[in-house]
Amino acid sequence: MSDQKTSIDFYFDFSSPYGYFGSLRIEKLAVQYGRTVNWHAVLLGPVFKVMGIAPIANVPLKGEYSHHDMERTARFNNILFKRPDVMPIASQHAARAVLWAQKNDAAKAVNLIHTLYSAYFTENIDISKLETVLRIAGDVGIDEDKLTTALNDDAIKDALKAEVAASIERGVFGSPFVIVDGESFWGFDRFNQLEVFLKDGKI
Amino acid sequence: MSDQKTSIDFYFDFSSPYGYFGSLRIEKLAVQYGRTVNWHAVLLGPVFKVMGIAPIANVPLKGEYSHHDMERTARFNNILFKRPDVMPIASQHAARAVLWAQKNDAAKAVNLIHTLYSAYFTENIDISKLETVLRIAGDVGIDEDKLTTALNDDAIKDALKAEVAASIERGVFGSPFVIVDGESFWGFDRFNQLEVFLKDGKI
Repeated sequence: MSDQKTSIDFYFDFSSPYGYFGSLRIEKLAVQYGRTVNWHAVLLGPVFKVMGIAPIANVPLKGEYSHHDMERTARFNNILFKRPDVMPIASQHAARAVLWAQKNDAAKAVNLIHTLYSAYFTENIDISKLETVLRIAGDVGIDEDKLTTALNDDAIKDALKAEVAASIERGVFGSPFVIVDGESFWGFDRFNQLEVFLKDGKI
Repeated sequence: MSDQKTSIDFYFDFSSPYGYFGSLRIEKLAVQYGRTVNWHAVLLGPVFKVMGIAPIANVPLKGEYSHHDMERTARFNNILFKRPDVMPIASQHAARAVLWAQKNDAAKAVNLIHTLYSAYFTENIDISKLETVLRIAGDVGIDEDKLTTALNDDAIKDALKAEVAASIERGVFGSPFVIVDGESFWGFDRFNQLEVFLKDGKI
C-alpha cells in the first residue's frame, strides 16, 4: 500500500468570481496538507439547465446582493478584485484552451488559469473572446498557432463536453467545487471546512 | 446625539436549517458588540416566487448536496442537529405565532423561536402543524387560548403578509438574512464577515 495522498479535484467556471477566489487559495491548501491539485475548467450552463436555475447575477434580489457580496468577500480575504462590467460571460474558449494546455504542458496550463482569471477579475478584460484567450495564452508561453488550430478543431469541443458531463456525473453544480477523498465542498465559503477535512481526514 | 447602537435585524424562515444555525449565534454576537436583536420570522415562498427559484432541498444535485452540507456544517460548528424527515415544511403557523407573541411578550417570543427551531431541527417534530405550534407555545408560557383565537383571526395573517412584504422590500431573499446599519449578510456562512463588521463598523 502506498501512503500517497490523492489529489484535490478543483472545479471552476471562468465566469465565477468565487471560483477565482478559490483558485488563489487551493494550491496553498494542497501544499500544506501534502496534496496536489487537479484543475477542472468547466461550464456551469449545462448543469444550471439540469437544475432549472439561472446564474446568480441574473436572479432578482440575489443578483444585486451578489455584486456587493463578491466585493466584500474579496476585501474580507485580502484578495485583489475588480468587478467586471459584464457578468456572467461565455467561458468556453477559456475552458477549452486550458483543457488543451493541460494535455501539452501542465505547468503552463496552471499559469494560464491564473492569468485568465486575473485578467477578468482584476483588469476587467473580457476573456470570453477567442482572440483575448489566445493572446493571454501566448503571454504565458503557450504556442498560439498550435492552440488556434486546436481550438478550431471539433476534438477540443468534444473533450470539454466530456469534461463537463463527467463533472455533472460527480455532482458538481457550482464554482468553486472541490472533491477530495469522496467529500464534496461547494463554494469558497466552505474552504474553512475543506481545510479541517484535509487536516483531520474528517469533519 | 445618542451613542445607542442600532439593533440587528435577523430574518429567518422556520423551514431553514441555516436559519436555525444562525438563531443559535446571533444573540451572542449582538451582546458581544452592544447590540440587540430584532427577530423577523418570515416566509421565503413569496420571495422565491419573485426570484424564480425553488427551495434548495428541491433543486436537483444541490438538494442532495445540501443535506450533506447542513449536517457537516452543524458538526463543524458544534451545533446539535438532526435532519428532519420532511424538508421544507410550511412555516406560516409558526411565523404567525411568533409575530403575535412579539406583540404581547417579547421575551417569550424569543423563547418560542428557539423552542420551535429546536423541536424541528433536533427532535424531528413537524412544526408545520397548528396544534404542534400551539403546544410548544404553551410549553414556553404563552396563553394557548389567546394564541388560538389570534391565529384564527385574519389580522395575524395580514400582519405576517405585511412583515414578509416589508422584508422583500428590504432585499431579504434567504435565511438567515441579517441587516445591520444598512449592511446585508445572507447566510450563516457570512457570520464571520458580520462579526468583523460589528467589531470594526466596516469590512
